[in-house]
Amino acid sequence: MSNKGKVLVRSAESFPLEKVGAGEGTSRSVMIGSDDAPNFALRRFVMEPGGGMPNHTNTVEHEQYIIRGSAEVGIGDKVYQVKQGDVVFIPEGIPHWYKADQEEGFEFLCMIPNKPDKIEIVDTGC
Amino acid sequence: MSNKGKVLVRSAESFPLEKVGAGEGTSRSVMIGSDDAPNFALRRFVMEPGGGMPNHTNTVEHEQYIIRGSAEVGIGDKVYQVKQGDVVFIPEGIPHWYKADQEEGFEFLCMIPNKPDKIEIVDTGC
Repeated sequence: MSNKGKVLVRSAESFPLEKVGAGEGTSRSVMIGSDDAPNFALRRFVMEPGGGMPNHTNTVEHEQYIIRGSAEVGIGDKVYQVKQGDVVFIPEGIPHWYKADQEEGFEFLCMIPNKPDKIEIVDTGC
Repeated sequence: MSNKGKVLVRSAESFPLEKVGAGEGTSRSVMIGSDDAPNFALRRFVMEPGGGMPNHTNTVEHEQYIIRGSAEVGIGDKVYQVKQGDVVFIPEGIPHWYKADQEEGFEFLCMIPNKPDKIEIVDTGC
């Protein structure tokens, strides 16, 4: 049953985390999903120290906020050092990857529109 | 000029805060706006200790994440105690208000769709 349109007040940590298959040491929870809200979804990603995601594209944009730790994030042909309190926008279709810090790991919010998303791993030729 | 579709990586604290007229001790920055991203906006609200917003409605829904401090938040006919790490969904049209903690203040992310928003203060009859 859809909860769309219902008030929600809940701790982020109370949402169950699920392993992200394409990632390494990476888990995700959907906190506000397409069944809960009409326009966009709020997810939380947790990466263990040294974990991450390989270079990939999505058919939807990402709006992100770093809530814990730090990471190297590759977006297009640039590499950024991001940390708690940083805001990141990744337009649809732009290749990107994550490598969490070896000591403290990395945790971020990732918001996407309620639209079909197709994830494709980018072949790096390695 | 629109930056829509451009990569953005930037500290939340580097975006200038502006006073929110209807609030008390409340400021806001737009970190990812409708000129930057196609579907929804990411804003940051900062409330001084004891600050807040009166009971009001919006024509758009709010998806929120508390990044610092705690507050009493009224949504519809209920009052919630919220704190760092909590997630809040307020459907469109539901009256809501905020009262930041007297000691530490309150800071949260508030995401809204790129749609026209009309704010109306709810007359409490006081």
